[in-house]
Amino acid sequence: MRAAVYEAMHPEPLAREQAATRADEPGAYERLQALIRSVWPQGASVLAIGTASPGPLDPRLGVILKTPNIPEWVDFPLVRRLSADFGVPVFLDNDGNAAALGEWMFGAARGHHDVIYVTVSTGIGAGVIVDDRLMHGFHGLAAELGHVIIDPDGPPCNCGFRGHVESFSSGPAIVRYVSEQLDEGVSSTLKPGPHLSARTIAQAALQGDALAIAAYRRAGEYLGIAIASFLHAFDPSIVVFGGGVSSAGPLLFDPFHLSLKQRVFHPRYLEGLKIEMAALGDDAGLLGALALTQISMQV
Amino acid sequence: MRAAVYEAMHPEPLAREQAATRADEPGAYERLQALIRSVWPQGASVLAIGTASPGPLDPRLGVILKTPNIPEWVDFPLVRRLSADFGVPVFLDNDGNAAALGEWMFGAARGHHDVIYVTVSTGIGAGVIVDDRLMHGFHGLAAELGHVIIDPDGPPCNCGFRGHVESFSSGPAIVRYVSEQLDEGVSSTLKPGPHLSARTIAQAALQGDALAIAAYRRAGEYLGIAIASFLHAFDPSIVVFGGGVSSAGPLLFDPFHLSLKQRVFHPRYLEGLKIEMAALGDDAGLLGALALTQISMQV
Repeated sequence: MRAAVYEAMHPEPLAREQAATRADEPGAYERLQALIRSVWPQGASVLAIGTASPGPLDPRLGVILKTPNIPEWVDFPLVRRLSADFGVPVFLDNDGNAAALGEWMFGAARGHHDVIYVTVSTGIGAGVIVDDRLMHGFHGLAAELGHVIIDPDGPPCNCGFRGHVESFSSGPAIVRYVSEQLDEGVSSTLKPGPHLSARTIAQAALQGDALAIAAYRRAGEYLGIAIASFLHAFDPSIVVFGGGVSSAGPLLFDPFHLSLKQRVFHPRYLEGLKIEMAALGDDAGLLGALALTQISMQV
Repeated sequence: MRAAVYEAMHPEPLAREQAATRADEPGAYERLQALIRSVWPQGASVLAIGTASPGPLDPRLGVILKTPNIPEWVDFPLVRRLSADFGVPVFLDNDGNAAALGEWMFGAARGHHDVIYVTVSTGIGAGVIVDDRLMHGFHGLAAELGHVIIDPDGPPCNCGFRGHVESFSSGPAIVRYVSEQLDEGVSSTLKPGPHLSARTIAQAALQGDALAIAAYRRAGEYLGIAIASFLHAFDPSIVVFGGGVSSAGPLLFDPFHLSLKQRVFHPRYLEGLKIEMAALGDDAGLLGALALTQISMQV
């Protein structure tokens, strides 16, 4: 977990700290409290606290329904707890939505009105801005684009359901594909085992390993299919990619672009469309929480 | 083509006429002009003209890029022509968007803030309302939900691309499936030929024909897969179904509901969600154009 203090509309932090989340130990809320106190400014008033967390969560109620790295937080009223303890307004959104807001306000999507942010990592998260407003939906569960079904008979997703884009193009999906191919006797410099990761596979691909290259090609092709559908659904002017798997560069994005062009059903969707890498890097969550706070305080 | 005159916010027309579109004859614009004149009120001032047309079209420029039933209209500046000829502001949107607005303002989706409208017919069209605003996207091409890819290796769509929900669940998709099964020797009361239609297949299904029932079951199952993805993407509070194929009732919607429940990846999406039939029927286009005009005049 990370915390930082910002002045309004200034993406350079005045103070910044981080601490281990420690999934296996209770006391996550107390660690978060201490972390916030460690950056709390002396002699200056704090207007609000913005928070971003993996979900699912309810941004309107300010409740974390469940979050992968803190198993003790089930239906956890984070906003109520923090606002009682710190005496300021508190805002919460999920990490994908916050990163989308951050990129739109401070990063790669500045000046765009219709934005899709996609992070390709252990999972595939997203946030969508429609006409300068973050899309939340009725339950605050919109933009779960990693769980859009792109093949009803596809492999199982981290969530347990089948054929989601996350089950084809996330880090674990790339690893699983390589493992399956190795099990089937495909020859490769890669060996099965726990050291196999999206990163080690990318390294092997850069050294010319055919299986590793094929694994990224497959992930990129399916990502292109998914993004084609998202263009048809949302018609954005920019798609911003974040997340560790996205840093594989042409290994993933050459096949992605080819697939996207083959699948978009009208060329007009691509006119003027930008496909960009996220600009905020590790600060996406912090700057997303800042952007969320800015927007929430304006309403 | 249809034309009607309404008082502001009153969905009962003061006058109403229709005329054949006649795809095979030039002069569509002149026929539209005459149709509008035939309902033009005497002794009352007209505030604006709203128009709804199959697309693709550019709602901001007011230009029809291409429209299936009027081949002579390619990059046709409908808004400029009508406003020059009638001397009032003119607004244009595609039929799916207009119907979504109509259902939201006057029909099944009144009071909802996040709405997906889907028409299942010769094609599958749609319109999406996000937080009380129609979603247009950067090029005005958002909400083409019939062309979301649900199986990359699926059958060809009317648009020429593969595996769109329209290629599984539209009227022609149902007919094609039955034709293919008949060609493969599946026994049925249905016979191959030009009289095969979504309607004749529905009639056979109601009389217990197993192939006809299977054809609707397949269409409903894939529609459920698509709508599950749309819930994950948009998280609406209501999904409204229009179009002739939707009138098949339980034949389509029993397998649809089963499939939707199996595919939604978190039960919260279904809490309080309404799935309703369109309320405006044949007037969807007219009342959609009225709703479009209301909204456009308010801005």
